[in-house]
Amino acid sequence: MRKLTALSLAVASLFFLSGSLQAQGVSSETIATLTDVQKYYRALHIMVMLLAGFGFLMVFVRKYGRSALTATFLLVSVAIPLYYYFGDSGVFGDKGSQIDTLILAEFAAASLLITAGAVLGRLKMHQYLIMGILFIPFYMFNEWIMLDSGFGLIDKGQFVDTGGSIVIHAFGALFGLGVALSMTTKNEYDAAIEADATSDRFALLGSMMLWIFWPSFCAALVIPEEVVLTAVNVILALSGATLATAFMSQRLRGKFDAADIANASLAGGVAIGSVCNTASPTEAILIGVAAGAISTFGFAMIQSRLQKGLKIVDTCGVSNLHGIPGLFGGLVALIVVSGINYTAQLTGIVLTIVIAVIAGLISGKILQLFGHRKVPYTDSEEFEVVD
Amino acid sequence: MRKLTALSLAVASLFFLSGSLQAQGVSSETIATLTDVQKYYRALHIMVMLLAGFGFLMVFVRKYGRSALTATFLLVSVAIPLYYYFGDSGVFGDKGSQIDTLILAEFAAASLLITAGAVLGRLKMHQYLIMGILFIPFYMFNEWIMLDSGFGLIDKGQFVDTGGSIVIHAFGALFGLGVALSMTTKNEYDAAIEADATSDRFALLGSMMLWIFWPSFCAALVIPEEVVLTAVNVILALSGATLATAFMSQRLRGKFDAADIANASLAGGVAIGSVCNTASPTEAILIGVAAGAISTFGFAMIQSRLQKGLKIVDTCGVSNLHGIPGLFGGLVALIVVSGINYTAQLTGIVLTIVIAVIAGLISGKILQLFGHRKVPYTDSEEFEVVD
Amino acid sequence: MRKLTALSLAVASLFFLSGSLQAQGVSSETIATLTDVQKYYRALHIMVMLLAGFGFLMVFVRKYGRSALTATFLLVSVAIPLYYYFGDSGVFGDKGSQIDTLILAEFAAASLLITAGAVLGRLKMHQYLIMGILFIPFYMFNEWIMLDSGFGLIDKGQFVDTGGSIVIHAFGALFGLGVALSMTTKNEYDAAIEADATSDRFALLGSMMLWIFWPSFCAALVIPEEVVLTAVNVILALSGATLATAFMSQRLRGKFDAADIANASLAGGVAIGSVCNTASPTEAILIGVAAGAISTFGFAMIQSRLQKGLKIVDTCGVSNLHGIPGLFGGLVALIVVSGINYTAQLTGIVLTIVIAVIAGLISGKILQLFGHRKVPYTDSEEFEVVD
Repeated sequence: MRKLTALSLAVASLFFLSGSLQAQGVSSETIATLTDVQKYYRALHIMVMLLAGFGFLMVFVRKYGRSALTATFLLVSVAIPLYYYFGDSGVFGDKGSQIDTLILAEFAAASLLITAGAVLGRLKMHQYLIMGILFIPFYMFNEWIMLDSGFGLIDKGQFVDTGGSIVIHAFGALFGLGVALSMTTKNEYDAAIEADATSDRFALLGSMMLWIFWPSFCAALVIPEEVVLTAVNVILALSGATLATAFMSQRLRGKFDAADIANASLAGGVAIGSVCNTASPTEAILIGVAAGAISTFGFAMIQSRLQKGLKIVDTCGVSNLHGIPGLFGGLVALIVVSGINYTAQLTGIVLTIVIAVIAGLISGKILQLFGHRKVPYTDSEEFEVVD
Repeated sequence: MRKLTALSLAVASLFFLSGSLQAQGVSSETIATLTDVQKYYRALHIMVMLLAGFGFLMVFVRKYGRSALTATFLLVSVAIPLYYYFGDSGVFGDKGSQIDTLILAEFAAASLLITAGAVLGRLKMHQYLIMGILFIPFYMFNEWIMLDSGFGLIDKGQFVDTGGSIVIHAFGALFGLGVALSMTTKNEYDAAIEADATSDRFALLGSMMLWIFWPSFCAALVIPEEVVLTAVNVILALSGATLATAFMSQRLRGKFDAADIANASLAGGVAIGSVCNTASPTEAILIGVAAGAISTFGFAMIQSRLQKGLKIVDTCGVSNLHGIPGLFGGLVALIVVSGINYTAQLTGIVLTIVIAVIAGLISGKILQLFGHRKVPYTDSEEFEVVD
Repeated sequence: MRKLTALSLAVASLFFLSGSLQAQGVSSETIATLTDVQKYYRALHIMVMLLAGFGFLMVFVRKYGRSALTATFLLVSVAIPLYYYFGDSGVFGDKGSQIDTLILAEFAAASLLITAGAVLGRLKMHQYLIMGILFIPFYMFNEWIMLDSGFGLIDKGQFVDTGGSIVIHAFGALFGLGVALSMTTKNEYDAAIEADATSDRFALLGSMMLWIFWPSFCAALVIPEEVVLTAVNVILALSGATLATAFMSQRLRGKFDAADIANASLAGGVAIGSVCNTASPTEAILIGVAAGAISTFGFAMIQSRLQKGLKIVDTCGVSNLHGIPGLFGGLVALIVVSGINYTAQLTGIVLTIVIAVIAGLISGKILQLFGHRKVPYTDSEEFEVVD
């Protein structure tokens, strides 16, 4: 009797328990939904970076502010839908869930904006759009090889680049240099790129928007358990880069330069990308310091010489902010990540360089067919302006 | 014996299991709390739109920047507490939980800021406040009829307007036109509304803040399962509108116009509101393209003619950004949403138009009693200024 | 037989149930991870406040914008890693999990930026850095006494200061006044601190960034169940302060002052700090109104007199925004919080005042050793500038 009662109790409470669990609805689907909503917030943070971040960073060209911001709007508005539909079609592999596809589309838009920085002020407004349409398939082609084992060149998961040092930053910068080679004529080569107090303050605003939300960029697709570590690493890397930038800028130039501060401080975010979720905090800050120093050296010492040597203009210095620090970040992974596949990592880096440069050169040649601006770096040619 | 052991084991582990579940605290209340915190983040995103978004979009009036931003501060600071206390009192129906009430209060503040855009620069600072105090009860009255079956006119849930195309945007714009009819005298009608390079860049900043966080505006109150789809739809609609705006602005004017870009690009967000959580991504982008084109057409071709015809000034062109695209969005629901209640949707749209215009006219008449500015569109009349 | 079957069923389904629960992974660890990710979003919101908020609020000095923003970058980049490593070392008590440590580090950076506001424009760039290095240990020492029962002076949990009215705001302001006493020479005392239309608009942008994200500052470390209430309280307090500020500014000066609006509106956030998660909404709005009024009175009536009396310059008026309203907030807790420990609260406030002032005086003396700027409040001494 007692046995029976106990048994009934057990069975009854078992059903009660399982029923109440169902009623509460705490299923793994509920958790998956909440996790997706959390990813959405990171996606939104990246959107701040794309529009307000990259957009205002490019406003440092004092007479080209309306154009830089409009170009930013257009590039984002062409890149995201294009990637989204290509991604959905599955041409370049499976892009995962809807929120993952959106985040990957934003990554592509970031890379495109980096490309645009190289030729900023020298394209007509509709040429930015055409560049975006050319860029996205090339970008997805490279991404597919690096991350989705396209052509079976690199096994899935073997190429380490969580925050996109190579796939996003270096690719965008090198593509941009490819385009710049075609889109820099003498007329544009001789024109001065001028800043003033207001354009500098706007550029610093853009820089801050990138700095602030960079942790979400790197943590966008990591598993929930790695979000906090990734964020801490990115913040430490950015802090290190900012300190190194200020130090180097003052040392190399004698005075601080607002463009150095606005740009090179972000090199920490670029370089930590590949190992953002695997580095230790101390490694992160050291990577940041090195990246900031390298980047500032590029802005202060290499930029003008390279410009004279290669006869191309890199308006925003994306080679110094995204190119070199991106490659540095991809290579650092060889040291920091234990058990890394050296062949895969090096193959990935070399292939990305090759694909980006060739794709950029091709795109530049096509863009050339659509003509050149009369006066570079000014709103007035294409905008109704009062002053 | 074996039976008894098994039984004891079953009972014991049952209690252990249920105990450990309680200890873990993974109850539906825990999930509800996390969901509320996630809603809070969307509420905060809307706050960015209210202050930095609407605020800086209105800074395009170059000599009226401090005033536009101060007015924004004041309107938000009067609208949210007022709605919160009215909502709590239950006069206009039950507003749900504390976070839902906050979000609804922010919606009301958004609508009020749209109204303010219509008469920007022509009210004294304290008149904005009085307008806010008049606006909120009218807004809540309309909201109560549309969404809470006020007077039993529209059954709850029958009026489709998730992101507020009608209830927030069209209502605010039409209320504003009603007020503008009283608050535009010859003195203010003849004054020029001027922008410059810096005011345009600030306006584009405001525009970007609205663009970026608009997905959270539309997704603020949807269930977690619909957040990602809603966000994707809003981003695609905004992208479509941005591309259409740039195309139309250049076509209709011969050159791009920064005000077109800053404003009409957002029409995609306005128009997708009603169906943001029900449209497909392709429908979303098409709605965006149409809304951007309509809005730009309004800014470029209708604004100045309407101004001459109706003898009223709509400072920020809210009729072109929020009025027409809002009504368009509410009507599009008739096509996009399967099984929609046509009568309820059309009744809702017509009633909102009627209530908004009448309430705006009444409020304008009352505001007239508090006088007129001497010189419109300048800070110096009310602010200590150096330049 | 039936008994046995039932028993087997019970046991079997018990294991199935417990297995499926494990398979679903809805464990308390999963929830803890999601909660940490949610905390991370609040940490990111605070980062907006630190860089874009405090940074641009200080851009109101029209010729010192690049410097103010660079200083902000540097102060954040030195404060966060420094706190993070000290915190990790455990010298000043246990700072909790990684995300808690990050948030506490951001609080320290906020307090440091407040200190910097007091001497803004009068330090060389590297002096800001030195000040940061001196500040963090003092700050952590005080924090340890207030919140971690350092020296056993105040029992853990007895000092009520959730959002840091005392520990963050009053401490930073008083430390800043201590530094200012040493870092204000006649040369710098006589120089004018000038604003213009553009610097005012940037300052209002910074102010809005602080206003918008303040709810996450106060709610950063509260339990999930208190996040929404805290947010509502902070928004109501800020709304109250904004309305009171506009009213008082116009009354006391005859016209509105952009600096009053940008600063004193935030006093509601400062003052609600101590009781942000315990006050009722109505108490919150009243605290906000009082804080806004007190702060505006300070800016309009006390600032210039204090400056003449004490012969020190408080560039950003941090004593009026963070000092007095912070102390007010700490004292209000005595009335609002039922069952508060009066002795602990008053001891905490008095000790914080003493420690902050002494630490500031010491730091000022040390900073003096590193010299003085030639011309205060200008970029050109340290920056490459065109205009």
